[in-house]
Amino acid sequence: MVDIIERKRDGHPLTREEISFFVKGYVDETIPDYQASALAMAIYFRGMDEREIADLTDLMMHSGKTIDLSSIQGLKVDKHSTGGVGDKTSLVVGPLVAACGAKVAKMSGRGLGHTGGTLDKMESVPGMRIGLTDKEFKDQVSRIGLAIAGQTGEIDPADKKLYALRDVTGTIESVPLIASSIMSKKLASGSDCILLDVKFGSGAFMKTFEAAKELAQTMVKIGDLLHRDTRAILTDMDQPLGLAVGNSLEVKEAIATLKGHGPKDLVELARKAGGIMLEQAHIVASAEEGEKRIQEAIDNGSGFEKLCALFEAQGGDVSYIREPERFPVAKHIVEIVAEESGYVRRIDSLSIGVSAMKLGAGREKMSDTIDMSAGILLKKKVGDRVEKGEVLALCHTNKEGVDEVLREVHDAFQLSATPITVPPIVHAYIR
Amino acid sequence: MVDIIERKRDGHPLTREEISFFVKGYVDETIPDYQASALAMAIYFRGMDEREIADLTDLMMHSGKTIDLSSIQGLKVDKHSTGGVGDKTSLVVGPLVAACGAKVAKMSGRGLGHTGGTLDKMESVPGMRIGLTDKEFKDQVSRIGLAIAGQTGEIDPADKKLYALRDVTGTIESVPLIASSIMSKKLASGSDCILLDVKFGSGAFMKTFEAAKELAQTMVKIGDLLHRDTRAILTDMDQPLGLAVGNSLEVKEAIATLKGHGPKDLVELARKAGGIMLEQAHIVASAEEGEKRIQEAIDNGSGFEKLCALFEAQGGDVSYIREPERFPVAKHIVEIVAEESGYVRRIDSLSIGVSAMKLGAGREKMSDTIDMSAGILLKKKVGDRVEKGEVLALCHTNKEGVDEVLREVHDAFQLSATPITVPPIVHAYIR
Repeated sequence: MVDIIERKRDGHPLTREEISFFVKGYVDETIPDYQASALAMAIYFRGMDEREIADLTDLMMHSGKTIDLSSIQGLKVDKHSTGGVGDKTSLVVGPLVAACGAKVAKMSGRGLGHTGGTLDKMESVPGMRIGLTDKEFKDQVSRIGLAIAGQTGEIDPADKKLYALRDVTGTIESVPLIASSIMSKKLASGSDCILLDVKFGSGAFMKTFEAAKELAQTMVKIGDLLHRDTRAILTDMDQPLGLAVGNSLEVKEAIATLKGHGPKDLVELARKAGGIMLEQAHIVASAEEGEKRIQEAIDNGSGFEKLCALFEAQGGDVSYIREPERFPVAKHIVEIVAEESGYVRRIDSLSIGVSAMKLGAGREKMSDTIDMSAGILLKKKVGDRVEKGEVLALCHTNKEGVDEVLREVHDAFQLSATPITVPPIVHAYIR
Repeated sequence: MVDIIERKRDGHPLTREEISFFVKGYVDETIPDYQASALAMAIYFRGMDEREIADLTDLMMHSGKTIDLSSIQGLKVDKHSTGGVGDKTSLVVGPLVAACGAKVAKMSGRGLGHTGGTLDKMESVPGMRIGLTDKEFKDQVSRIGLAIAGQTGEIDPADKKLYALRDVTGTIESVPLIASSIMSKKLASGSDCILLDVKFGSGAFMKTFEAAKELAQTMVKIGDLLHRDTRAILTDMDQPLGLAVGNSLEVKEAIATLKGHGPKDLVELARKAGGIMLEQAHIVASAEEGEKRIQEAIDNGSGFEKLCALFEAQGGDVSYIREPERFPVAKHIVEIVAEESGYVRRIDSLSIGVSAMKLGAGREKMSDTIDMSAGILLKKKVGDRVEKGEVLALCHTNKEGVDEVLREVHDAFQLSATPITVPPIVHAYIR
């Protein structure tokens, strides 16, 4: 192992055998954490070439159980977001794509810090189960074309160990390690086609377009090398996605979107992402045609019915989906009021994400519990005209003494004296 | 700690407080190995400036007990070698400098791999004790001007832990980490003046003159910043030092040298190093004058008598020093014969060091035992004329089946058809 660390430290590519020695040894604990962290730091500085990253991904993916979806007819598609603020896309795109006939087999995660997690959002509906057995998962995808579940502990143990180590050793921000971490999990969960939604901006993991693009290109290349149809979109996370941030607030926004009343950016992202996924699943011949089908599934309500079917299949109380006014509402709803007039130039999504967490919507550490009703509803988005005294956002919380958080939410809005051009939600497509 | 790792990873200098947090936390085990190794790797890539290295050295030095030598009259001098093959200099220079009136308080180490250790060499004399109490150590320096002892576990625990970790995480070869490791131990052992013998070449830790010079300059600068008179010499380790490699063989060579029959390079090194140490101890006004005094101490036998006093004071059987023929001789003494004629161009000291270890003179791991009588006696040095059939070296061993080693010893000698200019032993002086 020392030789392997030194070879990477000195800038040599590692062979598949060396990477395999590391992954196997780290999982079976013959290689200690202190050697793994030294190697991770050497990789941080020296990088890895595409072949090395593909080998690392492949070996991590095979470090545990992989899901075999071949018993399900047709091409299975999955979407993965690198995480953001207000990102309820899976709850919109998943049902829409499934409503158009694709098979969506999605493993999702929980929220941490300023980013939310799809599983937490789903659990705001009473009864909803995210822990499905493999058989339940596959049967549900076969039957209704859609399942969204948590990953079991048996999938990709190498990533679980390595990610926890990287988190405490300053080795998170490494493209080869991020790419192999994401892709090994996605590949292990068995879909034929993967659409990666790589977000960039203040509320995203990658702060710049360039960094996000490098990560996206790397992951698409790995997918190709490992024979999965992998594509990526680069999307804006400089302001929160949509208007709602917080678990039941976001589910309600997903419902509204599927009923045709969604915020512009979320609808646009759902159309673009869904269009590509339908093309990947060979349901349509082009992404443009796919977009039209997605719009139809919004307009004719089939996407909304698929959302209901998803919750029903996994034990959720569908009456909440059909009558979203049933969701409990937080005790306090505080208006954040503009102190001057102007055009919204920026809404710092990192700040909004952290504020929502502090209001109860998220976790600082994995053991924290979530207040499903807490969060922030934006009333203005980038480009909107604001008059002094107008409401910028509503803060939903059951907590007292959150004045400082309310101030932060106010300050997250930056105004401009002159009109602002609204950027598109999808900035680039990579395949 | 993660912040500290990330700051170093991103190329920022660490504050004294941050370095202190790391050193204290690592020693008291609130900071785990995996974070320390990640930081060490970040330091490997990013380096440290002189202030950081001085802080690290100072904080490591104070991580355990420090020896207070102030009760001993006069300036205390110490010499440290970065390690080589056939390096018995301490056993020659220590007695000579002490014979000239300086106080030599030396903490030394054991051999590992291809390099020998002064403590092991001393233990080839029956009865010799290298584990002195602080009081014994100080009393002996006061009384006879010289003590050479092992470092106790209470000195510099930060270095002990960190060195062991670096050894298994590919982070040994980092100038800031090497310099702070050496200097923190030297400073903790309490001498006022330190002469560093930084070796370069195949048998040394630093393979090139440039690398050795960088390390030497760094350590001298740290010594200055921490208020100790620190100087360095850069010496050749492209061939073994002197003729003897192996424990009792080297002690016998030290004895011969102090009796005026030493090999040219060893005598030269003893004169140069001793001259500087006498100047550092304010015994003489210049290193040149010091060199003369060292030669006198060889010529009048006072250096040899001081060696006897050293062994006597630490329980060694002085009859071995006075009658070196009493040292046990290995069962097999095998001649290595030249297969062609020429001038010795190079004697690969790494190869000679490893061969001596394999013949029984050294350890591959710290738990191995040493055969005190084993080793290699060179009969030719760089520049010497060799005729085909002449003896190049004698291999002393109690082992059987060492043909491969004998071949390696032969191949360590590289001959040239044309005469070779002999390089000086000391290549540069740094202060």
